[in-house]
Amino acid sequence: MRINQRIRKILSHYESDNPGTKGQLARLLMQGKLAGTGKMIILPVDQGFEHGPGRSFAINPAAYDPHYHYQMAVDAGLSAFAAPLGMLEAGADTFAGAIPTILKINSSNSLTLAGDDANQAVPGSVADALRLGCSAIGFTIYPGSNYTHDMIEELHELAEEAKSVGLAVVVWSYVRGNMSKAGEGAIDTIAYGAHMACLLGAHIVKVKLPSDYLENELAKKEYLAQKVDISTLEARVRHVVETCFRGRRLVVFSGGDAKDLDGVYNDARAIRDGGGNGSIIGRNAFRRPREEALQMLDTLIKIYQGKL
Amino acid sequence: MRINQRIRKILSHYESDNPGTKGQLARLLMQGKLAGTGKMIILPVDQGFEHGPGRSFAINPAAYDPHYHYQMAVDAGLSAFAAPLGMLEAGADTFAGAIPTILKINSSNSLTLAGDDANQAVPGSVADALRLGCSAIGFTIYPGSNYTHDMIEELHELAEEAKSVGLAVVVWSYVRGNMSKAGEGAIDTIAYGAHMACLLGAHIVKVKLPSDYLENELAKKEYLAQKVDISTLEARVRHVVETCFRGRRLVVFSGGDAKDLDGVYNDARAIRDGGGNGSIIGRNAFRRPREEALQMLDTLIKIYQGKL
Amino acid sequence: MRINQRIRKILSHYESDNPGTKGQLARLLMQGKLAGTGKMIILPVDQGFEHGPGRSFAINPAAYDPHYHYQMAVDAGLSAFAAPLGMLEAGADTFAGAIPTILKINSSNSLTLAGDDANQAVPGSVADALRLGCSAIGFTIYPGSNYTHDMIEELHELAEEAKSVGLAVVVWSYVRGNMSKAGEGAIDTIAYGAHMACLLGAHIVKVKLPSDYLENELAKKEYLAQKVDISTLEARVRHVVETCFRGRRLVVFSGGDAKDLDGVYNDARAIRDGGGNGSIIGRNAFRRPREEALQMLDTLIKIYQGKL
Amino acid sequence: MRINQRIRKILSHYESDNPGTKGQLARLLMQGKLAGTGKMIILPVDQGFEHGPGRSFAINPAAYDPHYHYQMAVDAGLSAFAAPLGMLEAGADTFAGAIPTILKINSSNSLTLAGDDANQAVPGSVADALRLGCSAIGFTIYPGSNYTHDMIEELHELAEEAKSVGLAVVVWSYVRGNMSKAGEGAIDTIAYGAHMACLLGAHIVKVKLPSDYLENELAKKEYLAQKVDISTLEARVRHVVETCFRGRRLVVFSGGDAKDLDGVYNDARAIRDGGGNGSIIGRNAFRRPREEALQMLDTLIKIYQGKL
Amino acid sequence: MRINQRIRKILSHYESDNPGTKGQLARLLMQGKLAGTGKMIILPVDQGFEHGPGRSFAINPAAYDPHYHYQMAVDAGLSAFAAPLGMLEAGADTFAGAIPTILKINSSNSLTLAGDDANQAVPGSVADALRLGCSAIGFTIYPGSNYTHDMIEELHELAEEAKSVGLAVVVWSYVRGNMSKAGEGAIDTIAYGAHMACLLGAHIVKVKLPSDYLENELAKKEYLAQKVDISTLEARVRHVVETCFRGRRLVVFSGGDAKDLDGVYNDARAIRDGGGNGSIIGRNAFRRPREEALQMLDTLIKIYQGKL
Repeated sequence: MRINQRIRKILSHYESDNPGTKGQLARLLMQGKLAGTGKMIILPVDQGFEHGPGRSFAINPAAYDPHYHYQMAVDAGLSAFAAPLGMLEAGADTFAGAIPTILKINSSNSLTLAGDDANQAVPGSVADALRLGCSAIGFTIYPGSNYTHDMIEELHELAEEAKSVGLAVVVWSYVRGNMSKAGEGAIDTIAYGAHMACLLGAHIVKVKLPSDYLENELAKKEYLAQKVDISTLEARVRHVVETCFRGRRLVVFSGGDAKDLDGVYNDARAIRDGGGNGSIIGRNAFRRPREEALQMLDTLIKIYQGKL
Repeated sequence: MRINQRIRKILSHYESDNPGTKGQLARLLMQGKLAGTGKMIILPVDQGFEHGPGRSFAINPAAYDPHYHYQMAVDAGLSAFAAPLGMLEAGADTFAGAIPTILKINSSNSLTLAGDDANQAVPGSVADALRLGCSAIGFTIYPGSNYTHDMIEELHELAEEAKSVGLAVVVWSYVRGNMSKAGEGAIDTIAYGAHMACLLGAHIVKVKLPSDYLENELAKKEYLAQKVDISTLEARVRHVVETCFRGRRLVVFSGGDAKDLDGVYNDARAIRDGGGNGSIIGRNAFRRPREEALQMLDTLIKIYQGKL
Repeated sequence: MRINQRIRKILSHYESDNPGTKGQLARLLMQGKLAGTGKMIILPVDQGFEHGPGRSFAINPAAYDPHYHYQMAVDAGLSAFAAPLGMLEAGADTFAGAIPTILKINSSNSLTLAGDDANQAVPGSVADALRLGCSAIGFTIYPGSNYTHDMIEELHELAEEAKSVGLAVVVWSYVRGNMSKAGEGAIDTIAYGAHMACLLGAHIVKVKLPSDYLENELAKKEYLAQKVDISTLEARVRHVVETCFRGRRLVVFSGGDAKDLDGVYNDARAIRDGGGNGSIIGRNAFRRPREEALQMLDTLIKIYQGKL
Repeated sequence: MRINQRIRKILSHYESDNPGTKGQLARLLMQGKLAGTGKMIILPVDQGFEHGPGRSFAINPAAYDPHYHYQMAVDAGLSAFAAPLGMLEAGADTFAGAIPTILKINSSNSLTLAGDDANQAVPGSVADALRLGCSAIGFTIYPGSNYTHDMIEELHELAEEAKSVGLAVVVWSYVRGNMSKAGEGAIDTIAYGAHMACLLGAHIVKVKLPSDYLENELAKKEYLAQKVDISTLEARVRHVVETCFRGRRLVVFSGGDAKDLDGVYNDARAIRDGGGNGSIIGRNAFRRPREEALQMLDTLIKIYQGKL
Repeated sequence: MRINQRIRKILSHYESDNPGTKGQLARLLMQGKLAGTGKMIILPVDQGFEHGPGRSFAINPAAYDPHYHYQMAVDAGLSAFAAPLGMLEAGADTFAGAIPTILKINSSNSLTLAGDDANQAVPGSVADALRLGCSAIGFTIYPGSNYTHDMIEELHELAEEAKSVGLAVVVWSYVRGNMSKAGEGAIDTIAYGAHMACLLGAHIVKVKLPSDYLENELAKKEYLAQKVDISTLEARVRHVVETCFRGRRLVVFSGGDAKDLDGVYNDARAIRDGGGNGSIIGRNAFRRPREEALQMLDTLIKIYQGKL
């Protein structure tokens, strides 16, 4: 693994981390077809936990098998595979060394009611991540929920331990709870959630692609007064990257429910041109036939490589 | 204990487990008359805790004695005996080595009110399981209850410890709480609960036999769109097995309140033909006279052996 | 201490216990005038905590002094003395070795409101029991209360530790909470509570003497269908003993508020003839003048010896 | 420090304590002008936390300085100085060895609402007490509050640790919560609170001086039936002392809001003549000019010495 | 670092602290242009967490970068830089040794609703402070909130650990919750909050500049009766300093939302003349252009040096 200048620069931003953690960040940035570009595509598969197996995989029954996803991430040349405990346990040995893995350490589910009390269970540990050979832990926070403080404290405890044993920390920051539905996708709240993740010590931040809606009245006033450009998706990505310590932290985006390929590709171009570090793409991959998914991922990689 | 190809294949699916845990899974699969078939019948006796001793055993007073159940499991050639702490303590020495035991580590009771707050107390530990020579711990989760997150976290903590000391983990996954009564037996929710148990790291999953009812609107839409076959009990068992990592995890079923023998036998045939790994059968055993129960269990074994 | 066959048989039922714990059970069974009979009378003094000192001891001011009760238990030839922390601390040295003691580790009080939320504070530990030279810990559970699960988990944690250091565990199982007032004394609920205590790992179970009332509808149906004999106090004691693993666990009874001597004696005869293992008798002892109490206890001992 | 017979007798009542703790009790009983009398006057200063600094000290601004109180306790020849963490930290070195100190380990405040939920925060530890050279920890319980059980368990945990490292335990037992306002000062509830503190393992109990009101109906009936003398303050003190293991535990009293000197002195005479062990006196000391306070304390000492 | 008499005097007030903690206090008092004066200006940057990044930094985008603030604190010759975990992690190596840092260990945010339940999440630890080379931890309490007790106990636990490893403890004491809006800035409540912080063991207390409003009726009565001077800002600062153990603890003030320079300067003069130890100044610094901010800070330093 020959680390180039671009990656060395990115790693230098993680001033307080030990060589173990920096090594894991390097593994993520030097894996697959995007190695050395500073961009990443991560395959996350926790929808079976979050929405149920039928709603997620009945369309493509091969995807009930954890090995299907491991193989997809490897064959498509992605940067990492992220999943809950049991899914990693079912393939960790077969695919040892083949692809960096991220243990998604907490998960929500659709059977338990939530609303403003949105929360996730925490059925994983740093010890699990270590015994499964993971490169990072993944943790979701819901800034705005009545459980915000609890989730932040759980994250801190796990992140502190993860850093001490040389793992990286990926934070899924999803604003929700005491706000409007549109507010969960608003530029001010998503930027707020991204900034919070950085202040909480995340190495990699994952947020949704923001709309140009402004949720908070005081934020709205300031965005207008300071003429913050949020007119295009690219501009909004740039704003989010700026709130992540002006680019000192890696930021990746999810595309939400988008289904048609042009939408997916345009999102990726906006992420790339706005200075974002890549995509986390799950349902859009495994809910298509395998060959179709591989082609789509190859196109996304070419976009991030600047070839399309 | 000579392990055949079929069992070796099953064990190979537990990629992340240490030899201790694999050895315990092997013990369960190589015990009694179903040894080597990949099928299991487990005798669970926690009804005294869950419904009270009178309602459970007055019909057959010999069954107030823990030794009665140990002896039944041994004489019938079953795969394992599962019970709460005190019942195992009362026979662990007399029956040491005679039959694998599963410490049922949490239990509900009928005296405490529940509803959407359904939960179980946890009066057991991994240390208890070890000192009593158990092969596995058993833990119930109620996906859908307001205590789902808590139960998941308790399970994770115990399962992580159990795996680290070479024990197996059996998860009773009973959906209940924020859903209709029919929903507790619906194919979509039961498959969801089974899949969650796998993602939580269970080695063996125990669910109820599902009806063809579909509880969740979004799931229903997808099941219909993808034409998932749920028309027969066998098809529904096959669907549940598929959601358990396409057969990478062992799945056993309970028959609920069914009393007549034909019902019990037909359930077993559907489990067998749908690819399930066996039955957990309690009340249907100990609430019959001993000889009758032994005959019924012998017939079930023959069904799982494919002889009936 | 020469242990006879009867006691040896009782001890053999505690299959999973270490020699330390069995030795403490032997001490309780070989103490005082009932030594070797398999019967016990235990003096418990926690009424000062539960009802206040005035309501308990003003009638007999000498009883404000902890030494009074120690001396009573010794002089009457009882099996053990059970009390909260502070009371044992005040006499542990003077009476070291004179009588086995049971540290009552949790206690309720009348100043704090309860109802369905009935619970007890836990102002004691296994370490306290060890430093005070106790033979056992005593713990109360309230099956039916909204705190049932919590109390069960507290008990388990303490009992697991107690067993590991060679102490015995006495469980006061008082059903209460989500049931009628009569239900707290009903035969089905009391048997349920006794059985739960056994399943939770108690060595000695303490319940109230049950009435012939049946609280739970489903239990009532089964008791009638199976013709469980609950017509006499002796029959009800026999039923409770049966639900305690058919006599594999020691069961002692309290007589509640009964005041006249004939009532106390008749209760004891019913306990004896129903196969119970003795009485826990507090207020009926210390709320009488010392000489009267000694005479009453002597008569009770003779009843348990089968002489009266 | 030459310990006389009277003190030796008192110390002998602490049967279960190690020499370290007995040594600290001896220090308290052999300090200042009341050394050897079995009586104590303790200066507590936590009113700044409980009522705010302005309401406590504006009348005597010198008292904002922690050294003022240390010096007062030393100069007046008192038995001990009790205060929260920060106040002891500010003088622990200057006054090391000059006067025994009691770390008041929990405290209430007037900014947080309470009512039946009355509780105190616990901003102190046994380790704090040790590093500050304290002789004892002080802890308040509110029997009757909805937090009674929690406070009892916190006290137990701290007291167990304190005893194990050779410290003494002083319990402020203030009944409040689910009772009438008059009930908080009633003889039956205060005696109940004092008795509970003893049963919880307190070495020294601190309660308010009780009125002749009887709060609880059942207690009232018993007090009347047994003709308990509660007609005078002296008789009520004697009753409280009796409920504290008939004098086996030290009991000190506070005088509440009383301001005029005659009231303070008469209270002390009643405590002395009723067999109480002294006073805890705070506001009545530091809210007077220093010279006036010293004179008052000197008079109190003379009263306890039996000279006035 | 040559410590003068003034600083030596201040350090002598911290009687119970170990040399490690005193050394850190010395570092804070001997840093930058106010070294040796006993005054401090601290730059805190947690507004991105508390109000969101857009509302805080859009006006001055360079301030999205953590290095901007580190550099500002160094270039302006301030005493210390205080920030949440992630911001310190992003510059701890580059600025190691350049300026003392304070890890702000808990933080509120604007997305989570609060009111009387105002609380903060705790995403930091003493271990974090140590690995980042911090001089102190910073912790906010909200006296008056329903979480007062919890925050006090969290603070105690962290402060105890911090002191044991030679760190200093800075307490932000903001009264809020069960009081009027004006009460959050009232002289009686702010003095109360400052005094509480001292009693909780803070080395440095940070409060808002108080108004002359009196919130609590009983306090108001006493302030009027004792003629406490609260007529000018200087007098109110003096009162707060007095409640902080008559100057034995360092007290710094924030200026709230004040924007115009004259207001900022007059506040500083009042703090200086009232005996306060300096300012914590954040938004007023980073929301101005860098050169303007440096000039303002230089003027403030001159004020504290007594030159303006």
